[in-house]
Amino acid sequence: MYCFNNDYSEGAHPQIMKALIEASLDQHSGYSMDTHTEHAKELIKKEIQREDADIHILVGGTQTNMITISAALRPHQAVIAAETGHINVHETGAVESTGHKVLTQYSPDGKLTPDLIQKTLDWHTDEHMVQPKMVYISNTTEIGTQYTLSELESLSRFCRQNGLYLFLDGARLGAALTSPINDMSLADIARLTDVFYIGGTKNGALFGEALVITHPDLKPDFRYMIKQKGAMLAKGFLLGIQFEELFQNNLFYDCASHANEMAAILKKTFQDCGFSFLSDSATNQQFPILPNDLIEKLRESYEFQNQQKIDDSHTAVRFVTSWATKEEAVRRFTEDFRRLAGK
Amino acid sequence: MYCFNNDYSEGAHPQIMKALIEASLDQHSGYSMDTHTEHAKELIKKEIQREDADIHILVGGTQTNMITISAALRPHQAVIAAETGHINVHETGAVESTGHKVLTQYSPDGKLTPDLIQKTLDWHTDEHMVQPKMVYISNTTEIGTQYTLSELESLSRFCRQNGLYLFLDGARLGAALTSPINDMSLADIARLTDVFYIGGTKNGALFGEALVITHPDLKPDFRYMIKQKGAMLAKGFLLGIQFEELFQNNLFYDCASHANEMAAILKKTFQDCGFSFLSDSATNQQFPILPNDLIEKLRESYEFQNQQKIDDSHTAVRFVTSWATKEEAVRRFTEDFRRLAGK
Amino acid sequence: MYCFNNDYSEGAHPQIMKALIEASLDQHSGYSMDTHTEHAKELIKKEIQREDADIHILVGGTQTNMITISAALRPHQAVIAAETGHINVHETGAVESTGHKVLTQYSPDGKLTPDLIQKTLDWHTDEHMVQPKMVYISNTTEIGTQYTLSELESLSRFCRQNGLYLFLDGARLGAALTSPINDMSLADIARLTDVFYIGGTKNGALFGEALVITHPDLKPDFRYMIKQKGAMLAKGFLLGIQFEELFQNNLFYDCASHANEMAAILKKTFQDCGFSFLSDSATNQQFPILPNDLIEKLRESYEFQNQQKIDDSHTAVRFVTSWATKEEAVRRFTEDFRRLAGK
Amino acid sequence: MYCFNNDYSEGAHPQIMKALIEASLDQHSGYSMDTHTEHAKELIKKEIQREDADIHILVGGTQTNMITISAALRPHQAVIAAETGHINVHETGAVESTGHKVLTQYSPDGKLTPDLIQKTLDWHTDEHMVQPKMVYISNTTEIGTQYTLSELESLSRFCRQNGLYLFLDGARLGAALTSPINDMSLADIARLTDVFYIGGTKNGALFGEALVITHPDLKPDFRYMIKQKGAMLAKGFLLGIQFEELFQNNLFYDCASHANEMAAILKKTFQDCGFSFLSDSATNQQFPILPNDLIEKLRESYEFQNQQKIDDSHTAVRFVTSWATKEEAVRRFTEDFRRLAGK
Repeated sequence: MYCFNNDYSEGAHPQIMKALIEASLDQHSGYSMDTHTEHAKELIKKEIQREDADIHILVGGTQTNMITISAALRPHQAVIAAETGHINVHETGAVESTGHKVLTQYSPDGKLTPDLIQKTLDWHTDEHMVQPKMVYISNTTEIGTQYTLSELESLSRFCRQNGLYLFLDGARLGAALTSPINDMSLADIARLTDVFYIGGTKNGALFGEALVITHPDLKPDFRYMIKQKGAMLAKGFLLGIQFEELFQNNLFYDCASHANEMAAILKKTFQDCGFSFLSDSATNQQFPILPNDLIEKLRESYEFQNQQKIDDSHTAVRFVTSWATKEEAVRRFTEDFRRLAGK
Repeated sequence: MYCFNNDYSEGAHPQIMKALIEASLDQHSGYSMDTHTEHAKELIKKEIQREDADIHILVGGTQTNMITISAALRPHQAVIAAETGHINVHETGAVESTGHKVLTQYSPDGKLTPDLIQKTLDWHTDEHMVQPKMVYISNTTEIGTQYTLSELESLSRFCRQNGLYLFLDGARLGAALTSPINDMSLADIARLTDVFYIGGTKNGALFGEALVITHPDLKPDFRYMIKQKGAMLAKGFLLGIQFEELFQNNLFYDCASHANEMAAILKKTFQDCGFSFLSDSATNQQFPILPNDLIEKLRESYEFQNQQKIDDSHTAVRFVTSWATKEEAVRRFTEDFRRLAGK
Repeated sequence: MYCFNNDYSEGAHPQIMKALIEASLDQHSGYSMDTHTEHAKELIKKEIQREDADIHILVGGTQTNMITISAALRPHQAVIAAETGHINVHETGAVESTGHKVLTQYSPDGKLTPDLIQKTLDWHTDEHMVQPKMVYISNTTEIGTQYTLSELESLSRFCRQNGLYLFLDGARLGAALTSPINDMSLADIARLTDVFYIGGTKNGALFGEALVITHPDLKPDFRYMIKQKGAMLAKGFLLGIQFEELFQNNLFYDCASHANEMAAILKKTFQDCGFSFLSDSATNQQFPILPNDLIEKLRESYEFQNQQKIDDSHTAVRFVTSWATKEEAVRRFTEDFRRLAGK
Repeated sequence: MYCFNNDYSEGAHPQIMKALIEASLDQHSGYSMDTHTEHAKELIKKEIQREDADIHILVGGTQTNMITISAALRPHQAVIAAETGHINVHETGAVESTGHKVLTQYSPDGKLTPDLIQKTLDWHTDEHMVQPKMVYISNTTEIGTQYTLSELESLSRFCRQNGLYLFLDGARLGAALTSPINDMSLADIARLTDVFYIGGTKNGALFGEALVITHPDLKPDFRYMIKQKGAMLAKGFLLGIQFEELFQNNLFYDCASHANEMAAILKKTFQDCGFSFLSDSATNQQFPILPNDLIEKLRESYEFQNQQKIDDSHTAVRFVTSWATKEEAVRRFTEDFRRLAGK
């Protein structure tokens, strides 16, 4: 049985594990006040070309979304997301648990646009309704799509004109930045958003999301928010060490490139066999629409998730690759798939 | 410079690091649904002699306190704690951030008693005040003291008679259970409380707190609460592996015993030199009251925290040892201390 | 200028004002523990034929929705509403401010059905998503439509089968119960829902909503919730006196009947002039779709709200009548309208 | 039976009831956007000599405290109060329900001082603890005492130096301002605090608390907060009319003076009979310490509350007078008391 059901099945890249072992018996300052974290932040600041950014490395994505959004908003303010946005669907109401409404717009490709945001603004005009104040996007999105530089520029301009904070969830940012169709850099993202994070959990680390705050209004007292939400890791140096490794020797990009390459093989296999996709993804999540009987046969040897029922005999399924996906497993899958699909 | 300022300066016990490395490239189910976590839970259930317990392994202590308390209480209900209780002081209002008041009683030794709890109950009698529903205790306490079996039995009886949940914060439970004056077992704690946790972060693990729920009312839907508060680790197998190691071959107890033994050497040193203590601790936290000029000299070679000003020339300070504290460092400290103290 | 923009422009029915004056200099017990409130509850219990109900009279609707929903749900649970539901749109995120997500379904007539609710249930299946636990409906709805007895029975059966609480917002319940197409009684509603309220603010009272709780799980400690949310009126006897009057001598029904009759005249006027409606309402809110230039002319003498843009030259507007609407004003409007509409 | 148990037993002053009746059949704009409210605000601004103040008239005290505090604080911030502060004791955790900790200091006279606040600041120094940001005082206090101008000036100076908002709960502000020992005006309070309110519920109105915001940081979007917490009264003109009356023809001060005068008679009675007091109050709440057997006899004809057990045979009780307290009842009480006390 080989798992394509997510990108967090394995531990960490061996280079990261090695660094963790080596530092394990040293004494470190607690709560991310250690030298490894300091160094990791320097590396990230250099990469994003923003010396003025505040950086906090947190353990997980839901935690990071919840803390960032609740730290930014006053009680009556809301965040706008695509209907498919992770905060709207798969975080058990974490944002609402901090008191804030998630306002959604339907978007077939999982991306927000100024027009969609404007629709929400048009509707929310007085104190009988919540006040939209932040825009949440994810890159890659929950369905594997990604923003172009021009799309992000346009969103950024719109948000600034309308007094909205722009927050980019980068749980799978590595996959976006190394995809064949990507045309932006971490520095672009730092320039165009107000706050974003660089996902480690799904890209080589045991865990860890590096939150980058560039908007000055969002910086004050952020460590209080981390602590209050139970997210301040006692041994914060573990986070620092992992991001040191990710941002040395190109590891962050190498891990993501590998994941995308493995997904590209899967994508080509599905395409060659004549299947269509739920979304057009150039990244490590692929959503082919397959016949249910083929899905059943594949499940004898492979794990993957159902995404959405298409009709009585077809289902869109999700295949995910990662830094740890073995090429031989992908090759074997390709052979098995072609055979089972009769192509 | 050697650090006695906390028990989370180092990484994990080598045996745990080894297990983490070995499993790093395997594929595991996500979100603590893996086989390592399953095994760790079995080991803990056996140790506590409660097959019916629900166990959830979480990353950190504040997180565990916040989730447990907010999952147990209805909106108008409150938790009772000693004034020194971690939830009252050092968690940045995490409990209040979920909507609940922490009701406190002053207790010189950091422990609650039925009499102290009764005082709070006497005062809270109608709907114009919050309704006390849970009692929070820590063992060891924040000032190194610990409960006896008879004290815990008496608290347990009182709480059950008064419809109060009894929750024991065991961030330093290892230290309590291996102290020379301890007279209770994990099985006793499981029997006498409604929910408690076994601390890993401060006792050999990189991180991890194993929450044990025995009261049936506290079990339903607990995983929803974990996820909502951003505390469901994607790679939950990391937690499972660590607790597998802690509860095999006595590692949990060995780590804590070592910490207590190192602290006993420090304690004897302070006593021999004629100093008194803020609290009477037989565990890995010691709070000697020292002259300020001596403290200043010690700080040239050792890190430790101020706990409390005593008078203009004396301060109670905190020395903490852990599974990783080196005996040679303790011996060197002893010599340095005797010399500087002029004894 | 005459106002049709809402049903809370005037104070209270003279019979209610008289009762308030008469009791003003008496001494009453505070916080709704007075004899008038006791009597009002008895009158309501008789009307709904449920001696076992718990009744609490609150000041306003948003307050009542927020308290009822937050008292009923555990932190990870959510309430299902129509997209147009008042709690989803016009309460400034009050429900979310207590930590709970509002899950919505689009419904053209503002009413929920078992099929729509089932869609939400199908989607919410594990701990990565909120758990639906309550269904919120309003009668009349926000767009003037209303449930039939058979629809309510079907919703009630579905909710009980699926472990969902059924909550009916009756801010305009009088209008529903006295409409020409109504086929249910207050007793039916008490039997088929788990909790509902009888609106006074929009039906003859200065303010006041009588919440009726029939489900035993929703009763405990409800007064704590009222107090905690700042909703316990010191002079609660003011609420009791008003509901005493409403449920004596048929005043509640008379007030609502008058409002509906006035609206029926408006409706006939719009129909006679050939205009269509946004929704099919037999109650005190009418939503005709009118040409923008006609709307502009009407605004010179009448106040009413825009509901929704239909196309570049037409808008759906809202006309609301109440117990206080003067028949002569409606007659005058009718004449003005026919003249301005050129019919 | 005559009630001295609180100052909200009766309805409203006849002058207010008359105004309510007269306006009852007029059409008013909803949600406090009406002309009466506008006029009331103008009268209050004139009285406090602050044209720049934002004024919002709310229904009740707990509501006003909860909204004001939660609107002012970021999630990690806390409010400082005396242990006896209404928000700490008698609001069922309303402040905590919005996520904020109430930090308390023991104060025998129920008043805060710079020294007491400094103690809290000294303790709260980093992100592991909540951040104090607001100071809550009440005038009169919950035990009938009151601030002098010089005390308020000193608090104001301290709060401004330390970046703390100063919030004065004026539920019984009338009693303070008309007491024989008062030396400040509403204009002083407006000048020295950042936000405060003028209580109507306990001083002549059916209900209503006029919140005055002078600090510019606390003004934005306040109406959103009111609506979100369910506190925006549909018929807000009821609040406006009542404060119009209170601030015309000196009614606000006359009502409070009467209450204080009635209390002074009670106070003199207790003093003359040789009894001491729990607190030194010159206002409408008196807390004599009486023998339990005398208390029992008094209860046959009078209602009043127990405040605190003093010893096995004595209890401090609370007598409260109001604008509506009848002088003849007070005289009768005086006679009864002297007789029963055997003096």
